[in-house]
Amino acid sequence: MSQVGPSIESTGLLGEELLEAWAFLSTGERVEGFRLLPPDEAEEFFVSLAGRDQADLLAALGRAERQIWLRQLAPDDAADVVQASSEAAREDLLALLDEVTRKEVAALLAYAEDDAGGLMSPRFARVRPDMRVDEAIAYLRRQARERLETIYYIYVLDGEQRLLGVVSFRDLFGAPADRTVREVMQSDPIRVPEDLDQESVSQLIAEHDLMAMPVVDADGRMKGIITVDDIVDVVQEEATEDIQKLGGTAALDAPYLDVGVAEMVRKRGGWLLVLFVGQLFTATAMAHYETELARALVLALFLPLVISSGGNSGSQASTLVIRAITLGEVKLRDWWRVLRREIASGLALGTLLGVFGVLRIVLWPSSEQAYGPHYGLVGLAVGFSLVGIVLWGAVAGAMLPFLLRRLGLDPAAASAPFVATLVDVTGLMIYFNVAAIVLGGTLL
Amino acid sequence: MSQVGPSIESTGLLGEELLEAWAFLSTGERVEGFRLLPPDEAEEFFVSLAGRDQADLLAALGRAERQIWLRQLAPDDAADVVQASSEAAREDLLALLDEVTRKEVAALLAYAEDDAGGLMSPRFARVRPDMRVDEAIAYLRRQARERLETIYYIYVLDGEQRLLGVVSFRDLFGAPADRTVREVMQSDPIRVPEDLDQESVSQLIAEHDLMAMPVVDADGRMKGIITVDDIVDVVQEEATEDIQKLGGTAALDAPYLDVGVAEMVRKRGGWLLVLFVGQLFTATAMAHYETELARALVLALFLPLVISSGGNSGSQASTLVIRAITLGEVKLRDWWRVLRREIASGLALGTLLGVFGVLRIVLWPSSEQAYGPHYGLVGLAVGFSLVGIVLWGAVAGAMLPFLLRRLGLDPAAASAPFVATLVDVTGLMIYFNVAAIVLGGTLL
Repeated sequence: MSQVGPSIESTGLLGEELLEAWAFLSTGERVEGFRLLPPDEAEEFFVSLAGRDQADLLAALGRAERQIWLRQLAPDDAADVVQASSEAAREDLLALLDEVTRKEVAALLAYAEDDAGGLMSPRFARVRPDMRVDEAIAYLRRQARERLETIYYIYVLDGEQRLLGVVSFRDLFGAPADRTVREVMQSDPIRVPEDLDQESVSQLIAEHDLMAMPVVDADGRMKGIITVDDIVDVVQEEATEDIQKLGGTAALDAPYLDVGVAEMVRKRGGWLLVLFVGQLFTATAMAHYETELARALVLALFLPLVISSGGNSGSQASTLVIRAITLGEVKLRDWWRVLRREIASGLALGTLLGVFGVLRIVLWPSSEQAYGPHYGLVGLAVGFSLVGIVLWGAVAGAMLPFLLRRLGLDPAAASAPFVATLVDVTGLMIYFNVAAIVLGGTLL
Repeated sequence: MSQVGPSIESTGLLGEELLEAWAFLSTGERVEGFRLLPPDEAEEFFVSLAGRDQADLLAALGRAERQIWLRQLAPDDAADVVQASSEAAREDLLALLDEVTRKEVAALLAYAEDDAGGLMSPRFARVRPDMRVDEAIAYLRRQARERLETIYYIYVLDGEQRLLGVVSFRDLFGAPADRTVREVMQSDPIRVPEDLDQESVSQLIAEHDLMAMPVVDADGRMKGIITVDDIVDVVQEEATEDIQKLGGTAALDAPYLDVGVAEMVRKRGGWLLVLFVGQLFTATAMAHYETELARALVLALFLPLVISSGGNSGSQASTLVIRAITLGEVKLRDWWRVLRREIASGLALGTLLGVFGVLRIVLWPSSEQAYGPHYGLVGLAVGFSLVGIVLWGAVAGAMLPFLLRRLGLDPAAASAPFVATLVDVTGLMIYFNVAAIVLGGTLL
């Protein structure tokens, strides 16, 4: 939400300090600190808080104070506060708003928080197509006295509120006074439906480099605008969610220090258990190769090295592909191009590590003593396994996000730990089978 | 860069198709497709391309066409194109600009691309503090005919171009005509120095919910503005870099499909080798426990399971902490709070996995046959190891980013694979030592 007046002034020193300390303060201390701020700082401070913090603070204030502060907020921000409040407090908060804003907030509350409708502000600048430029400017001047979200873009609506065109204020302002709005507007501007998800909205805004995006309902009637400053928060939030998923945990949906330990354990424990169950297959797979292990214990020494290299290669590939899919750089139909690239990269990377692995074993001081008389062959087995496993990691890591997307799931679920687990189990099999071929007749 | 007029119109169908196909086309095909676009679509299309693509396209056009298209760009975008062009082409491109823009572009080229100065546009709306509101509006009307970046905020400068205040256009517009600018402006607005890095700029803009941020030099003279739409790209870019680093690869700095295989191998091979060298220590550590392994081969079966669980726990912790540090939610001085939280979470998560591990081994059908007569003790060894290793993973994963930041390094280098590798080596030692205690006198 872009703010009215005060936002462009920097928060004073007291406000900055309070903001720094906020997470560490009890509710009582927060109220106390907030009341210490001089009036203009308090306003800037309050407006800059996250919706959840605003809701908590309001809940701790008296009814009169609550009304003053709640009314500082633009309708979309007020809607966020109502949404972040307890069920019981919501009715009371709505009752504190003036009638116009209450209606606007109630309308916004009907939208899902992550949809275009949930992000938009209903306070946009509007004119009619048959107004003259000077009439339009005078009309805007009256609108500007109310709390408009922005007058960067002026939207041109017909009698039924359908979006006909848009004109930037700069263009309107620079146009001859006696032209009509229709003559200076851009017709058929880009727009989004009210139920479009926020990730798509932010991609469109970023792609088209817009300062604001109009939101329309199914009948083409304009309902509000989403300004680019809200999109910064969305992009930030979505990136955080993706990063957390890629790290093999559920999205926290709150700052790290605000999440209780029990909640933290729940968010992480789920995935950790899933990964653990996946890893259990390594124990089962290992049991199959127990005879080989007993005969050539030296194979066990290089086991973590070999399978982790596959996991690392897989983590890299899946991370790169997931991000490319998220940014729209790679589409589902590109899987074949990606596969070919990953086969090439995987082979090159595998060969690199394989050569290193062989050299490490063969050139190790006293390798014969450490790894037995067949240390050369052991080196070869490790080297060839590395080629196969790194290649397999790259291919599996790159293809899994496509598979998940194809199944309608979130590609980001193919996290680094998830891919590593998958590759560990198969990597084991590659390792022991390659070893069986290379060492058959000597050690095995 | 927010665009002038045409940006608010949607790109036509042809333009959209060309954009989709762009990555797959040869330079010749790109020029051909571009020339097929109707004039207004071509302009929108050209402006929406990334700087690198604009540079490539311009290089393939004739001099006359090149001049036409280059002149469509605002000075900061033109500077990006010049920067993305070959050394040889730069002089020529600068010569194609009109004199005013050439000077502006040359000034921008002096800044590092990732600094505030490299992001800003010199075309901002400015007024004098002693102007009357109606004079200021008339003066802005003249400025609006030139190519201003935005008139959302009007900056109030003294005779030496020092930034005195700011007024939103909406406030100026809504103010009585005979007041002075000084009376309606907000004095001492937030600003950034020209050499501030873009990540800090974007955090400030996001935090203060601004539509634009003024940039000043060391003497307080205003040099330009950064608009929030540029920040969306920065936030997107920085998140991509972080995600790629967290996935254990160097930042690609280009779309996945645009990076050649050789380049890809270089970006990934470096880290993969580092991790490989780290993993070599597992082989060395394993050699220490060869006697134990030979006596209790059953320990090898659960080795991948146990050490991977530590790696996964470490990946989770490091990912969460790195993101929290990047977003400023957690500061360096919070390490002790984070440590206590991770000890609690790690213990809970370790116990969870430990109990699962014990049950898996003890309740497995024919566990005695599979794991020998001491299968109960083996189960306990695995269970206790899991508690220790998962705890250690969480603690090491959470503390490593702090350590890196403390050393002045990028915390994001504590990637999931990096932490997993670190925890693998130490996890091994924990596993064998716990096993030695639990199984001492029976198996070992």
